[in-house]
Amino acid sequence: LNALLLLDYAAVLVFAVTGALVASRAQLDIIGFGFVACLTAVGGGSVRDLLLDRNPVFWIADPAILGVALGAAVVIFFTAHWVESRLKAVIWLDAVALSVAVAAGVLAARETGQPAVVQAIMGLITGCMGGLMRDVVCNEVPLVLKQGELYVTAALAGAVGMITVLEVGAERVVAVIVCAAVVFCLRAGSMVFGWRLPVYRARPPRQ
Amino acid sequence: LNALLLLDYAAVLVFAVTGALVASRAQLDIIGFGFVACLTAVGGGSVRDLLLDRNPVFWIADPAILGVALGAAVVIFFTAHWVESRLKAVIWLDAVALSVAVAAGVLAARETGQPAVVQAIMGLITGCMGGLMRDVVCNEVPLVLKQGELYVTAALAGAVGMITVLEVGAERVVAVIVCAAVVFCLRAGSMVFGWRLPVYRARPPRQ
Amino acid sequence: LNALLLLDYAAVLVFAVTGALVASRAQLDIIGFGFVACLTAVGGGSVRDLLLDRNPVFWIADPAILGVALGAAVVIFFTAHWVESRLKAVIWLDAVALSVAVAAGVLAARETGQPAVVQAIMGLITGCMGGLMRDVVCNEVPLVLKQGELYVTAALAGAVGMITVLEVGAERVVAVIVCAAVVFCLRAGSMVFGWRLPVYRARPPRQ
Repeated sequence: LNALLLLDYAAVLVFAVTGALVASRAQLDIIGFGFVACLTAVGGGSVRDLLLDRNPVFWIADPAILGVALGAAVVIFFTAHWVESRLKAVIWLDAVALSVAVAAGVLAARETGQPAVVQAIMGLITGCMGGLMRDVVCNEVPLVLKQGELYVTAALAGAVGMITVLEVGAERVVAVIVCAAVVFCLRAGSMVFGWRLPVYRARPPRQ
Repeated sequence: LNALLLLDYAAVLVFAVTGALVASRAQLDIIGFGFVACLTAVGGGSVRDLLLDRNPVFWIADPAILGVALGAAVVIFFTAHWVESRLKAVIWLDAVALSVAVAAGVLAARETGQPAVVQAIMGLITGCMGGLMRDVVCNEVPLVLKQGELYVTAALAGAVGMITVLEVGAERVVAVIVCAAVVFCLRAGSMVFGWRLPVYRARPPRQ
Repeated sequence: LNALLLLDYAAVLVFAVTGALVASRAQLDIIGFGFVACLTAVGGGSVRDLLLDRNPVFWIADPAILGVALGAAVVIFFTAHWVESRLKAVIWLDAVALSVAVAAGVLAARETGQPAVVQAIMGLITGCMGGLMRDVVCNEVPLVLKQGELYVTAALAGAVGMITVLEVGAERVVAVIVCAAVVFCLRAGSMVFGWRLPVYRARPPRQ
């Protein structure tokens, strides 16, 4: 339980920072910063908890989580202009948050005794939904759908790796580290080296 | 309970009217009017009830609520062309609905014994989500995000005021009136006099 | 129960195919195909199950459903270029899926003992939400809102027809066929012959 709580807090903090940075790009006021930060921070986990019928939803069970997100929003409101490229900061912090949130989602589903495939899906949802809501609400191109980048793929690979390691009998901490490493490396590889999967082409070359 | 039900009805009616007016701007048919009116009317309260695990959701417990929303949609379908500025009507009615819905959300969360911070968030969600769904579905610029206007701020101030008054020991009715007055005055001040909070600027003036 | 499961599977399969076809138009990679296919396939039913507090959600109760959707996504990834007009295929298959999903939604609500009006709404939600999510996520014009086409209307008419037939005492199978036939014929009539309801006009002709 404690590991899960800690992961939730970490994901909330980093996602809140990305939310506040996106709010700064949209030039919102401080309440808008708090709104977008909270939405990004708890959006994915809320959908996960609703689908799993975990009751109460994690941030209702522990409203201090919202305090973390709001604190992050306030700090970013007054410091974001020191960040050289806020878009770049968003993209990289989002990769960190994704790594942690996928692990948190898998653990939460595991705790309620779901089978492996549901665990993987919950990892995906926890990782991807918050950022998706952030981008839709603030009119950014959703990172999750940027054509040809590994995003859902990275999250999925991390979740599958984590579940495999857990099934083999590894410690939770090890599994979380494996998951975060896989997700972050794939995201980073995609952003830096352009790693990607082949995309669908309407007219493939004749053979 | 009764006060809560009455507030839900009032919010549903006014939100349904704004939904139907937005549908008229999108030139939908009468079924489309009903669809958007219902979505606007029950969207925020549904998210609130799902998150709070209030079961059943308020409009499933009392489907007459949908009848109110559909009735409003039909009336607006045949009368909207008498309204001089439908956009203006939407904005002002939305302010009224917001005032009432925030109070309804706070009361609903209070009833299930949630702490003050969750009550405030539920007020926000009940007030803002219906209108947000309406605007996203109909491709209007979401009122909730209009840059530099007090919207989330107004809702938050109303919720905080209401909770404070309730904690001090005031009657429910008084608290609802306080909430509605605070929300409506802030929204109106923002629309008429341009009240707003300072927004984030990427490059603040040198000091 | 069995009829309901079979309907859910059928709707999931056809919706997944439409999701994958839309993913092909957006030129996503194979994981993206799977993502959009799953979202389209289980989106509407998930919202229905959350609102009805059916627990667990249908695809968590039976994850094989996700296997069907993923299988459809893989098949379409490798075969979509053989389809002459993928947009046309999407529109027609969506009409088939809508027909089946509305019936599934009505049955699910009926099973939990909801009144007729809630059954109709759940039919609408199950039928329309998955396609709406697909189109919003992939930046297509939502079919559900295409101005002046019968979509929500077709779904509503099918649900009402089905509930009437069931109330009169007909067999489930008959009711499902009635529902599917009504929905599909209205959608088809709207697409082929341009059937539609009168839309709202801001300035009606003088009388």
